[in-house]
Amino acid sequence: MSDLAARPVVELAGLLRSGELGAAEFTAACLEAIEAREGELHAWAHLDPEQALARARVLDRLPAGERGPLHGIPVGVKDIIDTADLPTEYGSPIYAGHRPAADAEVVVRLRAAGAVVIGKTVTTEFALFSPGRTTNPHDSTRTPGGSSSGSAAAVGAGTVPLALGTQTAGSVVRPASFCGIVGVKPTFDAIPSRGVKPASPTLDTVGIFARDVAGAAYALEALVGPRSGATGAPDRLRIGVAYTPEWDLVPADTCARIEETIVALGASIREVEVPGPFAGLVEAQTCVMNVEITHALAVERAYHYKQLSPILQQQLTAGDKVAWSYEAARAHIERCRGLLPVLFHGVDALLAPSVLGEAPPLEQGTGDPLLCRAWTALGTPTVSVPGLTGPVGLPLGIQVIAPPGRDDLALVGAQQVRDVLAGTFS
Amino acid sequence: MSDLAARPVVELAGLLRSGELGAAEFTAACLEAIEAREGELHAWAHLDPEQALARARVLDRLPAGERGPLHGIPVGVKDIIDTADLPTEYGSPIYAGHRPAADAEVVVRLRAAGAVVIGKTVTTEFALFSPGRTTNPHDSTRTPGGSSSGSAAAVGAGTVPLALGTQTAGSVVRPASFCGIVGVKPTFDAIPSRGVKPASPTLDTVGIFARDVAGAAYALEALVGPRSGATGAPDRLRIGVAYTPEWDLVPADTCARIEETIVALGASIREVEVPGPFAGLVEAQTCVMNVEITHALAVERAYHYKQLSPILQQQLTAGDKVAWSYEAARAHIERCRGLLPVLFHGVDALLAPSVLGEAPPLEQGTGDPLLCRAWTALGTPTVSVPGLTGPVGLPLGIQVIAPPGRDDLALVGAQQVRDVLAGTFS
Repeated sequence: MSDLAARPVVELAGLLRSGELGAAEFTAACLEAIEAREGELHAWAHLDPEQALARARVLDRLPAGERGPLHGIPVGVKDIIDTADLPTEYGSPIYAGHRPAADAEVVVRLRAAGAVVIGKTVTTEFALFSPGRTTNPHDSTRTPGGSSSGSAAAVGAGTVPLALGTQTAGSVVRPASFCGIVGVKPTFDAIPSRGVKPASPTLDTVGIFARDVAGAAYALEALVGPRSGATGAPDRLRIGVAYTPEWDLVPADTCARIEETIVALGASIREVEVPGPFAGLVEAQTCVMNVEITHALAVERAYHYKQLSPILQQQLTAGDKVAWSYEAARAHIERCRGLLPVLFHGVDALLAPSVLGEAPPLEQGTGDPLLCRAWTALGTPTVSVPGLTGPVGLPLGIQVIAPPGRDDLALVGAQQVRDVLAGTFS
Repeated sequence: MSDLAARPVVELAGLLRSGELGAAEFTAACLEAIEAREGELHAWAHLDPEQALARARVLDRLPAGERGPLHGIPVGVKDIIDTADLPTEYGSPIYAGHRPAADAEVVVRLRAAGAVVIGKTVTTEFALFSPGRTTNPHDSTRTPGGSSSGSAAAVGAGTVPLALGTQTAGSVVRPASFCGIVGVKPTFDAIPSRGVKPASPTLDTVGIFARDVAGAAYALEALVGPRSGATGAPDRLRIGVAYTPEWDLVPADTCARIEETIVALGASIREVEVPGPFAGLVEAQTCVMNVEITHALAVERAYHYKQLSPILQQQLTAGDKVAWSYEAARAHIERCRGLLPVLFHGVDALLAPSVLGEAPPLEQGTGDPLLCRAWTALGTPTVSVPGLTGPVGLPLGIQVIAPPGRDDLALVGAQQVRDVLAGTFS
């Protein structure tokens, strides 16, 4: 039973829906796995085993015909997302013991699909840059990444099959990469963000962690229905390598591994130069994010300033200093969104490194979202695929990016890249 | 004769105009002083002693009634400023041996006032951040500051009484501070910049170095006539201390020295909080500067990229990345200029530290213009006054800032601060 939670979501869903595996039995197994790792991992902000098991027992009594797609699947929910039956503290002492009046929309949908909200996972402070206590499941001296630290660590440790995160800069793709799992940041607003504590409302995107691409795709469809299934995705995508200016900062050994992947993808790959008018997207995203948090966190800043971390205090000051460029930044991002057909001309999806390197030591923070910022700004669906390792043997991810609304292409492309990685490096 | 060049400009001008001191005699004395220090100082890009002496001998033959205010005063001219009779290389190998067809407007005015253009002083590359060979006259292991490195060092070493520089971020105030002399950045465009190699045309400002405030004021009037003399400046100004957010970065010992100065200024001083709408001026100035250099240096970038320093290559890339915010940055600066009456309400001039500390070691570059950027953006006349020293005994300056067009107030305020510094710390 001990590695049951690490099995593919689709397989688990089949077993649970058919009754071969009981929801309470599986929830208990996950709780056991969590307990075994939690002393080192610190992935959870709130757990209520009794409540989770009670919910699972209710699900076990549902007749087969009424079982949802996520029937009996325990899911970790990032503690930036409101839950009415568990505390929601947003990673901040200001909200110690806070219990929202209502579930966030995505939690409503999770429950409607039959999932068991098994607990709340550790988030960085307000899903920004001040780390929580969570460690990396592959090396407890290193960060799991942020801001969806606990969700990525819990799935990476194989203690739950599925978890929810959010991404404003790189908070799904980065921890997925560091923890060696799949992270899906869908098209902006594909999963409603109502009931998620806002940081930067034009960027905040709810996302999903799973151990395999199919599991993440299955969960996404369970939450929002089929994504652009109308036109369908071809079996084998034409994938472009998006040479953004930030590639210059990727270590040579990581680049070499990605080049091998590219070679293995063979004829389906081509180079895509990012045209000049896209320059400055990273800066525009940073500006929008830093200015929007000054609005989103205005009350906390005004009344609880001393309870904000120094990192957040500095980020708010940084926001004040670029407020004059906010409208221009939004306009630049909109302009670039309009230019996306140029970037996707002749390719179905793009490929890029997820992160600048392996997970840094805990004391260095949660890592740099640099390579994610532009894609978050553009609102593109982005899937981080595991399968590479860096020089010290820790996981690295590759992002697969598709045009907004074409989450299906991002997921099919991610599967294609995953197959190549499994064949090349396993 | 050896310290003649270090005597006050006004005194020298009197001796030269009356004939008590011959122009050729004084030019020879300056050339001798230059030669004595140049092996260590490297302040000069081009010297032509014969030409300078020939010009001085012509001046010596002028009848007293035809002698200009700068009659016989040898002046160092920053090598970013065009001269038809001396090479002008802009601190870049791209322009090795370049000789402009005409003098810059300020050089025309210098010559018309009777000055001897004794040579061209070392500038950083295109008056930006890649250092030239010049060392600090007080410590040859340290930078003289930039970008007007040679002009400040030459005056600081007492080898010429007067020199011209330019400021786009902090290139007059910073080297004046590091070299322990007076630097005047007049109101934007007070001295015409025609014939100065443009870096950032909305910011580039021609300025003056001298050893005393009166000398700098005298030279400014010789070049542009009386500045706002119509209303006149009161004898004793009301001086405000401009507490910008950047004060947080000034070392405690420097702050303490400035506080002593403030106390010594007594009743004429008051604290001025910089209001919120001024936030981000440093960032806006940096944006405007970095974007404008991409236009000003477009030809050099396109055809001579490999001859640009890595520092400049990076700055041009930084400019590309914020091009989207250029108009917003200009608008923010204009808005802040409109708000200047709020800043100067109840005070005639403002006081602030010139630099974050003493001159850094040569290998660390030319120092940080951080504390100058906002004032350059606002186009305010700014005078750096020497008289403080830092923990290792090297000079530090205090900036005195007045509203645009009121260079007279900046100079009177500078004299007032200088008197206090001389009384307090000498």
